Amino acid sequence: MLIATPQTMRFDAPLQLQSGACIHGYSLSYETYGTLNADKSNAVLVCHALNASHHVAGVYEGQDKSEGWWDNMIGPGKSVDTNKFFVIGINNLGSCFGSTGPMHTHPDTGKVYGADFPVVTVEDWVNAQALLLDALGIQTLAAVLGGSLGGMQALSWTLQYPERMRHAVVVASAPNLNAENIAFNEVARRAIVTDPDFHGGHFYEHGVIPKRGLRIARMIGHITYLSDDVMNAKFGRELKDKVLASANGYKYSTQEVEFQIESYLRYQGDKFAEYFDANTYLLITRALDYFDPAKAYGGDLSQALARTRAKFLLVSFTTDWRFSPQRSREVVKALLDNKRDVSYAEIDAPHGHDAFLLDDARYMSVMRSYFDSISTGLEVAA
Amino acid sequence: MLIATPQTMRFDAPLQLQSGACIHGYSLSYETYGTLNADKSNAVLVCHALNASHHVAGVYEGQDKSEGWWDNMIGPGKSVDTNKFFVIGINNLGSCFGSTGPMHTHPDTGKVYGADFPVVTVEDWVNAQALLLDALGIQTLAAVLGGSLGGMQALSWTLQYPERMRHAVVVASAPNLNAENIAFNEVARRAIVTDPDFHGGHFYEHGVIPKRGLRIARMIGHITYLSDDVMNAKFGRELKDKVLASANGYKYSTQEVEFQIESYLRYQGDKFAEYFDANTYLLITRALDYFDPAKAYGGDLSQALARTRAKFLLVSFTTDWRFSPQRSREVVKALLDNKRDVSYAEIDAPHGHDAFLLDDARYMSVMRSYFDSISTGLEVAA
Repeated sequence: MLIATPQTMRFDAPLQLQSGACIHGYSLSYETYGTLNADKSNAVLVCHALNASHHVAGVYEGQDKSEGWWDNMIGPGKSVDTNKFFVIGINNLGSCFGSTGPMHTHPDTGKVYGADFPVVTVEDWVNAQALLLDALGIQTLAAVLGGSLGGMQALSWTLQYPERMRHAVVVASAPNLNAENIAFNEVARRAIVTDPDFHGGHFYEHGVIPKRGLRIARMIGHITYLSDDVMNAKFGRELKDKVLASANGYKYSTQEVEFQIESYLRYQGDKFAEYFDANTYLLITRALDYFDPAKAYGGDLSQALARTRAKFLLVSFTTDWRFSPQRSREVVKALLDNKRDVSYAEIDAPHGHDAFLLDDARYMSVMRSYFDSISTGLEVAA
Repeated sequence: MLIATPQTMRFDAPLQLQSGACIHGYSLSYETYGTLNADKSNAVLVCHALNASHHVAGVYEGQDKSEGWWDNMIGPGKSVDTNKFFVIGINNLGSCFGSTGPMHTHPDTGKVYGADFPVVTVEDWVNAQALLLDALGIQTLAAVLGGSLGGMQALSWTLQYPERMRHAVVVASAPNLNAENIAFNEVARRAIVTDPDFHGGHFYEHGVIPKRGLRIARMIGHITYLSDDVMNAKFGRELKDKVLASANGYKYSTQEVEFQIESYLRYQGDKFAEYFDANTYLLITRALDYFDPAKAYGGDLSQALARTRAKFLLVSFTTDWRFSPQRSREVVKALLDNKRDVSYAEIDAPHGHDAFLLDDARYMSVMRSYFDSISTGLEVAA
């Protein structure tokens, strides 16, 4: 069993952010798995999505149930084989899982950042990740890998540091959010911001947490992560309590839990509100909204991707309606317009957007093949 | 111009509800357009969806902009021609637009119902509608017509009063909600119920309105009413303010309105929270959740629809992901299993669920043809 050890790297030099603001005196949490080879050519950076962290693989010492969020994909003998690769998981700036974020203290004021934490973008995260690699003495990555928002980071790497990576693996992602994606983010943000316990983002000082808003945000999120089909298969119209007084099993109540899907969503919402930071939620959804590499090129993604040098694997899932296969195909097309080396797998999986985190034989096999080919390239180069 | 006049019918006899509760001393608001013919055979009942009322067509005297919600469909010379039909718009029990609802006073306690208003179902509404027809002296309807939740009422009519109607026109509807539909309803309800201004549904006594929750509920609703495509076409990633300091036009803010879609949703939410009753929202979404005529038949819709006698027109819209064409096809199949007379039109319209309220030449033409055929039947019979 792979034992993970979280580490922290501190950065004192100011990091210029895309917004114009600067952040200094910050830390990044990370974990590494496997061994960096002699020529430092086998490093794989894993970027996380909304609700994840640097704890990508393995478990913590003495904590059996503490598997990393992509432990099914990454580890000894797994699709991304840590016997071959040196895998780095990193927690992004603004997160609530270790790296400097809104819950931490502003070094200049001595006060908790809260809503004053600077707005961070995918590009800012990538810049911070590159600084961590500098500190680890890694010049070139074998691959950058990410799903969903993590896939956006992998794509942004190919634009910001084309010379520092050989492969980009972009799973269940998109070249930007569409109007519906932004709309769902906005409703979630409004739920948080209008919760009276939010206090303009300075709720820490009031000793409260905007749990109502966080619950709603998470419930909305969960709906968009699952496919219609898998929701019907898992929950359908099933009622929570099987034995009931009324003939047809309904309680005839507007506020009680009656359907299984309600129970599931409330549970997910409650759990999330216990551990996720409200300001982090705002920051991360905004980073999603803003990401749009084609914007500077009048919306022309092919032009935007002209500066990429990496080889690409893109993976999408047929039932993902959050980031549909169509969105991945846009990236594939833009890369092909630039005659880039692109592999693309559209996996017929029932689980919607969540599929990127789940075990699916075809998906795992595509990933394994691609990473094996990277690894073979390493051996030849060695 | 058709001038509409709202009317009210009071009912003193108790109405037994599906939940086991009773309601008495209630009123129903309604409007009628056109003239009931001598043999009372040309009446068309129009059932409303979530955010609508008895004001289906025409305008109110001296109020130019007060068109009924289906005024594009119903009126003199329109698809449902009030020169031929006597059209009845009715407001359902529990609504906040005229008929007795949570904002009214309980006749026994003298207090505002609030959360104590009994839970009402589609079947209860249909029973109340039948009582209104009794009072109007109409035994048999030429047609019952409804879209979305209104379509569920039209379908339920064919089961509850098969002998009192000749045609059912069921637009953009479904034989029940699926898990995703219930999930969206539940998130909206949680937003309302957890708003501190909700006060367990007795907010009227506190002089407040749970506007935060209502806004969120409406924003979620709007996302599900529109198609992905039409949202991208109407809003895309367009920013609200064109001239901005930062090079790429972003404000880098987590709480300000930046994208047009955000502005649209906030506006819709704000507007809705001004006029819609929170308890009504809970009641109507619950009626949607509960409706499931196949439930008593172990989920077998064909068996459930065996007792229908009406002729049917079903209409669905290709981009409606709330009540997709697939859901209408389930009804069509179940009716065909019973050898019922069914017409079905799947309209290739871009507007998502909202399409049923909008002008679309093919849609309007299908409706006109069908109602013309009903009207010809009337003339032959006369």
